[in-house]
Amino acid sequence: MSCVAEPPTVLVAGGSGYAGALAARLVDRHPGFALAAVTSRSDAGRPLTDLYPHHRVDAVLEEFDIDVHGDVDAAIVAYPHGAAAPVVAALRERGVRVVDLSADFRLLDRDAYERWYGPHGAPELFGCGVYGLPELYADQIARADLVANPGCYPTATLLALAPLAEAGTIADVVVDAKSGVSGAGRTPSAATHFVSMTENVVPYKVGAHRHMPEIDQELALLGSPVTTTFTTHLMPLDQGELVSCYVTTSEPWDQARVDAAYRGWAADLPFVDIVGTPPGVRDVRDTNVCRLHVRCDPRTGKVLVFSAIDNLWKGSSSQAIQNLNLMYGLPETTGIEAW
Amino acid sequence: MSCVAEPPTVLVAGGSGYAGALAARLVDRHPGFALAAVTSRSDAGRPLTDLYPHHRVDAVLEEFDIDVHGDVDAAIVAYPHGAAAPVVAALRERGVRVVDLSADFRLLDRDAYERWYGPHGAPELFGCGVYGLPELYADQIARADLVANPGCYPTATLLALAPLAEAGTIADVVVDAKSGVSGAGRTPSAATHFVSMTENVVPYKVGAHRHMPEIDQELALLGSPVTTTFTTHLMPLDQGELVSCYVTTSEPWDQARVDAAYRGWAADLPFVDIVGTPPGVRDVRDTNVCRLHVRCDPRTGKVLVFSAIDNLWKGSSSQAIQNLNLMYGLPETTGIEAW
Amino acid sequence: MSCVAEPPTVLVAGGSGYAGALAARLVDRHPGFALAAVTSRSDAGRPLTDLYPHHRVDAVLEEFDIDVHGDVDAAIVAYPHGAAAPVVAALRERGVRVVDLSADFRLLDRDAYERWYGPHGAPELFGCGVYGLPELYADQIARADLVANPGCYPTATLLALAPLAEAGTIADVVVDAKSGVSGAGRTPSAATHFVSMTENVVPYKVGAHRHMPEIDQELALLGSPVTTTFTTHLMPLDQGELVSCYVTTSEPWDQARVDAAYRGWAADLPFVDIVGTPPGVRDVRDTNVCRLHVRCDPRTGKVLVFSAIDNLWKGSSSQAIQNLNLMYGLPETTGIEAW
Amino acid sequence: MSCVAEPPTVLVAGGSGYAGALAARLVDRHPGFALAAVTSRSDAGRPLTDLYPHHRVDAVLEEFDIDVHGDVDAAIVAYPHGAAAPVVAALRERGVRVVDLSADFRLLDRDAYERWYGPHGAPELFGCGVYGLPELYADQIARADLVANPGCYPTATLLALAPLAEAGTIADVVVDAKSGVSGAGRTPSAATHFVSMTENVVPYKVGAHRHMPEIDQELALLGSPVTTTFTTHLMPLDQGELVSCYVTTSEPWDQARVDAAYRGWAADLPFVDIVGTPPGVRDVRDTNVCRLHVRCDPRTGKVLVFSAIDNLWKGSSSQAIQNLNLMYGLPETTGIEAW
Repeated sequence: MSCVAEPPTVLVAGGSGYAGALAARLVDRHPGFALAAVTSRSDAGRPLTDLYPHHRVDAVLEEFDIDVHGDVDAAIVAYPHGAAAPVVAALRERGVRVVDLSADFRLLDRDAYERWYGPHGAPELFGCGVYGLPELYADQIARADLVANPGCYPTATLLALAPLAEAGTIADVVVDAKSGVSGAGRTPSAATHFVSMTENVVPYKVGAHRHMPEIDQELALLGSPVTTTFTTHLMPLDQGELVSCYVTTSEPWDQARVDAAYRGWAADLPFVDIVGTPPGVRDVRDTNVCRLHVRCDPRTGKVLVFSAIDNLWKGSSSQAIQNLNLMYGLPETTGIEAW
Repeated sequence: MSCVAEPPTVLVAGGSGYAGALAARLVDRHPGFALAAVTSRSDAGRPLTDLYPHHRVDAVLEEFDIDVHGDVDAAIVAYPHGAAAPVVAALRERGVRVVDLSADFRLLDRDAYERWYGPHGAPELFGCGVYGLPELYADQIARADLVANPGCYPTATLLALAPLAEAGTIADVVVDAKSGVSGAGRTPSAATHFVSMTENVVPYKVGAHRHMPEIDQELALLGSPVTTTFTTHLMPLDQGELVSCYVTTSEPWDQARVDAAYRGWAADLPFVDIVGTPPGVRDVRDTNVCRLHVRCDPRTGKVLVFSAIDNLWKGSSSQAIQNLNLMYGLPETTGIEAW
Repeated sequence: MSCVAEPPTVLVAGGSGYAGALAARLVDRHPGFALAAVTSRSDAGRPLTDLYPHHRVDAVLEEFDIDVHGDVDAAIVAYPHGAAAPVVAALRERGVRVVDLSADFRLLDRDAYERWYGPHGAPELFGCGVYGLPELYADQIARADLVANPGCYPTATLLALAPLAEAGTIADVVVDAKSGVSGAGRTPSAATHFVSMTENVVPYKVGAHRHMPEIDQELALLGSPVTTTFTTHLMPLDQGELVSCYVTTSEPWDQARVDAAYRGWAADLPFVDIVGTPPGVRDVRDTNVCRLHVRCDPRTGKVLVFSAIDNLWKGSSSQAIQNLNLMYGLPETTGIEAW
Repeated sequence: MSCVAEPPTVLVAGGSGYAGALAARLVDRHPGFALAAVTSRSDAGRPLTDLYPHHRVDAVLEEFDIDVHGDVDAAIVAYPHGAAAPVVAALRERGVRVVDLSADFRLLDRDAYERWYGPHGAPELFGCGVYGLPELYADQIARADLVANPGCYPTATLLALAPLAEAGTIADVVVDAKSGVSGAGRTPSAATHFVSMTENVVPYKVGAHRHMPEIDQELALLGSPVTTTFTTHLMPLDQGELVSCYVTTSEPWDQARVDAAYRGWAADLPFVDIVGTPPGVRDVRDTNVCRLHVRCDPRTGKVLVFSAIDNLWKGSSSQAIQNLNLMYGLPETTGIEAW
């Protein structure tokens, strides 16, 4: 009998997409977890390095089979919305602790879910996920068996607005979000063709982005029920997301007060940087860091918050690792130190 | 004696910057004007093709000399703010009709000018410019001798908001503007280094962009006095500008009413397209066209307007040609047909 | 009866791809031709502006029907290799003069054609095309009814090497070609996904590019039979092609002699610029110009030639216009003046 | 007295440039070294995170002072050519082991050095550096006190050609090199302005790149004296370098033989991948890996080798770490595992 505990084994289900592949790489390099397998519906049988040479993960993609893959400690599920829930349910039935990257377990209102995403794939589990934004819910995440990893836009937006939302001061908010093309996923289309996007910037899903109900739900839970004006734009870059928030407050704030609120809140958060100049998305590329810049506009009284993340890292896969770290009692930063 | 009138001669002063060089090209190709000369403070003596091979203008940059260059019919002045006014004054003294690309003659409030730009270089002419947005002021432009070509952001923003401003319905507006790097000018700097901007997007001049007073002045003149929340972002592309406007109206509007207002307004405007899907900046690259998409958001009641232009064309040099066309009684589209 | 001749009518067949759509725009703006119709196999019924807003061509794509579309003076056929030949044959049967953008009528050796492209779609016409490189074959093109528009790589390469090839001095040549992503066509794929190509450069079709036999055929016809080493690379940009040629000559050349050869040859060519510094592809973007820089390397005795074109313009669609101009006795530059 | 050895302390001199800043980051994260200080001539007093937020190195740039900074175990010197030598000499005098990123100690022929770089800044040390390409000179590097880190182009080229050079079979070679803009350094200029390079590709320093003598020197030492035809091109991307080599061999090779030679050679090299498809530069971004693809062209008999590296990593700073690892008896991959 060994006195050294084996590290928990982690499955990545859905490893051929951008988020799943990055999750596989992060688990593979993680000192506290062992990568058990990587599955893929579309590319089973292919080495992961064929699809993602730069990730340098030595694994062959496998067809998902609960009898083969159910015997792990934990799983990161990177399936599309709707398709994720049944896989999550099967894994939970075997006792596997799950971080789900889809939207299937983020919302609390089932009508809202079905309006935006269609029928739910595992109704018995609906609402059972802990919302996996560690800066807000670290304690619940530590005890959770099912963590619903937030969407990339909600991650950037909620970190931008948390101190104001908790103060109950958000009377109105416009969120103008800008994302790199990796956010649109790996499936080739006219919209993601290089020629379509180079030298271009274009609004998309105006008034209809699925991340809207998720943002409003969480802002309300924090203390500021509000209907967010939320618009997304595609930019000619790969990874990176900038969210520009324009907040009308219900009472006047000044720069000193917002600074105090944000710096106090972020003081113990290893992955939130409050910075004195507006952040560029390159500042946080390939990191789990969210960089925030907050400004009171004396002309209008509005509070402006700029929030930069890497949509594939903090907006998805490295945040999943951060959640797994909490679930297994590891330091939050293990394996995703500020790279 | 010929019965064919000679075309008016046009000087381009300040032809080594992006806007001036493009103006030189547009005049050079124009069927109704003759390019008299192109001057430059920094590059006198060099062929313009050395600096801008793709413009293919066969001209050597000259040192500006009013005795040499004052004998033209018209001039486009592409000097920096502050430096433009004295040159404009000298040209006006010789009776030259001027389109000035700088901010020196856009503002009506001299205190505001000096706060944002410093001392004015030709106080006797302050306020004498006609604001050169042809979609709003065609008649005045036709009679003007000094036209103040609008800034690129005001152009995109005012075209986006004109029908609402004229209706006096703008209670509050957030303008989130995104520009290509050419908007930052030709002078090399750390911020415009390729490595700084590729795969990046970054807010700049937050709360302090000089185009703010120009926008507010014009919105008030149109009928909606408002303090605009205006923020600019640099994007990793060359030419192109997208302005996303979020309008809180003082009374409820619905989609049918905004459609009617915008389509009615634009019906006779050759360079304004009202389109059914959000415009990308590539849709208007290298054209004088402004593409607008207007949406009422039923969730919040806000009116969203997305406005795409080419910052160097409609945002500067081709708009100068449009103004010159009006000043000389030519069809507005001459030489800048929808290319 | 009018004494003013109607301009020739021109059909563009295959207008939904990059080359066909640009051809439609160039015909539409052309002062000497009338755009009769634009056809498309995949997008019939859609306005061309839906697919290409920036081309601003007011035409609805139609299903090709020889009974409807055969009654034109000329046609530009922009079909894929193999599919073009039957359409060309049908048009020729009606007496329509054709510029074909595909490879179907470029090669003279039918075995070579079939090895690279498969069975030919109109064997009776094989070899009947005049090779449409106007800088070499203007006289034949003027009399031709069927012009085989060259490939983009052969265009750049043959213009780079023509003076040396005609001197019979090419003993060996390495051609390292670099192209923007538009050269890979409009069909979305993993290889053309924005995320695949941004910040990337990658060799493709190494040792197997179909333009190799075309280049070798033409170099031999010019006087230098040689087996070219030809390799293509995809670069992270839209339009633009740079061909770097490294020539081992059969006898020594010096800089003065190559300069004289190239400048003498290009003196009367309106679209070939011999320049003193290495050309960038942006120098020729959206133009029909080929920019050449020639250098003798005293260390090795090799002659280096760098050739920049826009792969969609001089490499395809504007060259088709240049050919049409010659076929109809118009000045070669009509409608494609150095823009 | 502690029984645990303190890790060697490492100074990074010249930390405000791209290569020095990355070196500082790699030392800072390295498990076997301690970052002693980072110096800068131009930015002393500024936090390194001001210049490079994404490196996340908590250090203030200091003015170099041999009395302050000479008391370290090792140094990475990232000064410009010419300026490096005196700093290296001062450090060597204090017994500091040095990896120098400049060209000052790479060449063995002093005339050649002075022809390309001007007077040498520490003639007494000229020729004393061990050429720091670990795949070729690991043993010498392990014993060296002064390692001359290779240039980025020589690194990619020599790894591409080593097996052929050692076989003495290179009769002639054309090297067509393509680099991202970071290779041109951090100093802003017209050539590195975003607007100059986006959508562009341009040859530069044709026939005159300083890396030529370095490449020829090393090929000769390996067994193939040859005058390389070497041309560099700037591409619109940040980090990444692709070198396409076209080798005329002195005797015939076939695919099996080249495969055997390359795979045999690379079998024990942790950072050289021989791959079956042409590599893209993104495959190796932010890694110390060189990816090689080798192809015999049956049409011409030439051997084609494509070599992709990250110019800032394997082409400079991570290779410096690889050298330091060897110098201190650490596993070659420490701190630069395949990320």
